[in-house]
Amino acid sequence: MKKQDKACAAFGRRVRSLRESKGWSQEDFADRIGIHRTYIGGIERGERNPTLTTIHKIARALGVKPAELL
Amino acid sequence: MKKQDKACAAFGRRVRSLRESKGWSQEDFADRIGIHRTYIGGIERGERNPTLTTIHKIARALGVKPAELL
Repeated sequence: MKKQDKACAAFGRRVRSLRESKGWSQEDFADRIGIHRTYIGGIERGERNPTLTTIHKIARALGVKPAELL
Repeated sequence: MKKQDKACAAFGRRVRSLRESKGWSQEDFADRIGIHRTYIGGIERGERNPTLTTIHKIARALGVKPAELL
């Protein structure tokens, strides 16, 4: 696994953990952010490489600072 | 300015400040990261929306944690 892939995988695990701690399904979460559910699934599995603005959107929805997701 | 644009602008200012503190030109920096100089310029001006893996590459080159750039 490349360093970049590791970064995406670690980010995805963090997002999943925070989302689950709120008791939200991927669908609930996708609705809050305005991103498609399958995209959230891809992020959580580390298959997607989110942009800075998507990282900010996700952080805002989870009520954490963007830096806490990295 | 949208929240997203603000996020990119703040990121760009932070990158420029750290790069300049090392005395590197955009060209020096671009060579270290393996990203084109004009792309670095766009990031520093907040015109580009970098991905998570690009944020990691930039942080590694600057010797900081990715979270410190956000």
